[in-house]
Formats: sequence, C-alpha cells, structure tokens
Amino acid sequence: MAIRSMRKARGCWSFIRALHKGPEAGQTPQVSEHTQLSWILTCMVRLPRLQHLHQWKVKIATQKHGGTVGLLTYPVLQAADILLYKSTHVPVGEDQVQHMELVQDLAREFNKTYGEFFPVPRSILTSLKKVKSLRDPSAKMSKSDPDKLATVRITDSPEEIVQKFRKAVTDFTSEVTYEPARRPGVSNLVAIHAAVAGLPVEEALQHSAGVDTARYKLLVADAVIQRFAPIQREIEKLKTDRGHLEKVLQVGSAKAKELAHPVCQEVKKLVGFL
Amino acid sequence: MAIRSMRKARGCWSFIRALHKGPEAGQTPQVSEHTQLSWILTCMVRLPRLQHLHQWKVKIATQKHGGTVGLLTYPVLQAADILLYKSTHVPVGEDQVQHMELVQDLAREFNKTYGEFFPVPRSILTSLKKVKSLRDPSAKMSKSDPDKLATVRITDSPEEIVQKFRKAVTDFTSEVTYEPARRPGVSNLVAIHAAVAGLPVEEALQHSAGVDTARYKLLVADAVIQRFAPIQREIEKLKTDRGHLEKVLQVGSAKAKELAHPVCQEVKKLVGFL
Repeated sequence: MAIRSMRKARGCWSFIRALHKGPEAGQTPQVSEHTQLSWILTCMVRLPRLQHLHQWKVKIATQKHGGTVGLLTYPVLQAADILLYKSTHVPVGEDQVQHMELVQDLAREFNKTYGEFFPVPRSILTSLKKVKSLRDPSAKMSKSDPDKLATVRITDSPEEIVQKFRKAVTDFTSEVTYEPARRPGVSNLVAIHAAVAGLPVEEALQHSAGVDTARYKLLVADAVIQRFAPIQREIEKLKTDRGHLEKVLQVGSAKAKELAHPVCQEVKKLVGFL
Repeated sequence: MAIRSMRKARGCWSFIRALHKGPEAGQTPQVSEHTQLSWILTCMVRLPRLQHLHQWKVKIATQKHGGTVGLLTYPVLQAADILLYKSTHVPVGEDQVQHMELVQDLAREFNKTYGEFFPVPRSILTSLKKVKSLRDPSAKMSKSDPDKLATVRITDSPEEIVQKFRKAVTDFTSEVTYEPARRPGVSNLVAIHAAVAGLPVEEALQHSAGVDTARYKLLVADAVIQRFAPIQREIEKLKTDRGHLEKVLQVGSAKAKELAHPVCQEVKKLVGFL
C-alpha cells in the first residue's frame, strides 16, 4: 500500500508565494518528472473544472487582477505528485477532498484512454478536529492569517506563546467548560490542551477544576510550551547541521527520482511520446 | 544572435491533440527543462491574461465543455521554449504576435523581479503572403480544415494535387488576372504559381497569357508538383532510414539539453529553489 501525504505537495503553496515575494526558498523541485506529468495531465482537464474548485474561488476572491495560472493549475501538479508514485491512499484534510476527486477523475480518464495504468487513489480523511484561530474561534487557525496573534507557530518562543494565549478570545464566563457550539473560544483552548497533553477532553477539563479562564490560558500555554520544547530543540540542532539536511534532501530526491522516472517513461510511451 | 523558430513549438499542438485522440506520436518532449520553466512562468501570469488571447478564444468557441488547460497554458510553454535558450529574435507569422507579446512581458516581469536575466526577444515578422484555402479564398489554407480539398499537403500525390486544383473555387470570368480584392480565387492561384515557381506575380501572369482559368489550374498544379517532387523524394528516402532519423533526434535533444540545463539551473537559483 503506497501512502503519500499531501503535506509535501502543500508545501508548494509557499513556492508559488515565494515567486511573488522574491527569492525566498520554497519547495525545491528536484524531480523533473513532476512538471512533465503535470503538463500531460493539464491536457486532459478542461478550464471550467479548475475554475469551479472551491479553494481557487476562495483564494482569488480577494485578488484584484485574478489569480495566477500557477495557483489555478496547482491541483493538477498535486495530481502529478500523487499519480507519479502510483499512490493508492492519500491522507488529507476535508479541504482537500475536492482536489482528491480531481486526482481520481484524472486517473480514471487516463486509464479509460490509454488502458489500466494508475490506481485510483483513495482519500484517508484524518479524524483530527481543526484547531481554531485564537482571535476568532469561528475560523480555523491558519499560517496565512494576517493577525499574528491568531496562530501559534511551532517555532514561537515561550514568551510569544504565553502572549498569544493571554490574548486569546474567550467570553464573559470565567468557568472552564467544553461546549464548542455555545462557547467556541474556551472550548478551543480545552481542545488544544487535550491535544498537546495527549489527554481525552474530559481529563483535560479535570485539570482545570477551580481554575478561571485567565489562569487556564496560562496553563494551556504552558502545556503547549512543554509539548513544543523537544521539537524546538531538534529543529535548532538540525539547523546547525546543514550538511546533514542537504544529505537528507539528496537521498530523498534520489529515491523519489528512482520511483518517478520509470512511471513517467511508461506514461510517455502510452500517450505516444516515445 | 540566437534565432529560434516557433515552428518547433507549434508542433506541440499536435501533441495536445494526440492526447485527445489516442497514442499518436506528437512532439517528443525529451528536454525536461521546458516543463520546469513553464511551471515557473505560469506562477507569474494571471488567468485573465491567457483567457484574453485571441487564439484561445477562437479555438474554444466551438468547444462545448470549454478548452483544456493544456491549450490555455500552451502559450506559456511556448514562452519557456523561447526563453530557455535566451533567444533574442523569433520569426513568427502575424497570428503569433500576441503570443510573442506575452513572452516579452514574462521576460520583463522576470527581470524586474529577479534582476536582468532574459533578453526580451523580438518578433521577426515574415513578409510572406498567406496562401488561401482552395475552397474558400477568404480563409487561409489550414492543415486542420475539415474540407480535404481546401488544402494541398507537401506529401500529396500528383493525382491528388491535380484534383485539388481542378476543384479550386474561382469565378465566372475565364481570363487569368491578379486582383486579390475583386477576384480572390484566381488571384490565390496566381500567388501560389508565383511562389512555387519563384517568380514575381507579373511574370507568372505572362505564363498564363491566352490561357483560361480551367487550363491555368492544371498549369499551377503542375508547377506545384514540380516544386514538391524533390522534397517528396527526400521525405521518402529519409523514411526508409529510421536509424538516421532517430540519430538526428538524439543529437538534437542532446544539444538542446546542453543549452537549456544551465539556464534552467540559473532560473531555479534566482527564484530561490537551489
């Protein structure tokens, strides 16, 4: 069973953004087969199909001059990322289900035209609850939120984490309860607390017995700091060893190339290029 | 001065079509740098820009479900074809001038963002008159015309060429004159005659003195047959030597790769991929 996360592919959003911001490092496309298969797949999908994708509509809603064609065709590059490895299962969040349907349609369309070749990959929906914004608990926590206080980053210092939780939006009741519909702000804190402490929500609530929301915020911030600490230490350690990181990237892309090359060659043969 | 014809790039239309028809051989994309640069350039162009291109509008006008994204982004692949070799001049027909403006804008935009890198390539407009359809002298002669009698192919047999000219649309005057506006059909025959015989129009007309249009059609057909004969012999000879043809393709793509690779690496460095 070939499982491949869309997370790697998602990293490419920063690639597209990097192109508009300047020479910031995005995802490094070392395996040229991805853009080759992507080009072939763009010849099999019609424009309205991509224009109707929800994520495209959301992203361009705020763009005065229309979205870039890179953004429009990005789901096709994702499809190439997945199909190139003949993936059978892809763990995704709910927001990627529509893109996975595109991948499935492209696989079926290819198989119908050129004979059975790609497995039609299935989505594995992760059951994890979405973490909500600390500033607006009706929205999900997002890296691209313009309000810096809305999002906790894994690289934030303990001081930053404390400050963000201190300013987290709750309500006028000081008791800590878990009622996501009626009290989304404080319930988001309980959910985060439970997640980082690895506890069921009920047990997390027990820890807050007799604690008001103001003090609970600090308790949650501390749990987050504790959970992030070993990860941050590892990040710092890795950052000092550039040679090791480069080796990991090299080994990874060599392995990817080894898998992707024969599949891409087969595709070219099937569509009549070789 | 690097000159590169769009003709090679245009060959890719058959590639796109091949994808919809089945495994017919199209242009073989051996140099993976083309799709890589193309992907980077699609991140620099906005959707409305491609949707407003005249050729796209013409081609999708007859398509019930919208054009493919391959067709839409094809001018960006052309731009990559041109910029990858730092071309400075590109000989094109008038129908490609708008696509060349896109190439120029992409070169300028890239240079503005990442520093002077691509020469902004200039169009060289070929002054050749367009050959008109034999069945409708108001339209240009086109390989994709559904009326088989409209178009003479370089591989047509002498019998086919005679038949096509015999059925060429003229008018009710039997004299041969060159008046493109008033008598487009017979004037198209004169233009073809002059072109294949390598004569000015005036001299071609002298050859037709005392000849009516019916006999003139056979005279022009004969001139075309004479002109095509050595080319057809060369095509037949080449077709028997598959090894030679494959060698030409190999040498060509090796040479292209040698030029394209360092430019593509530079681009990746500039946009922050390496």
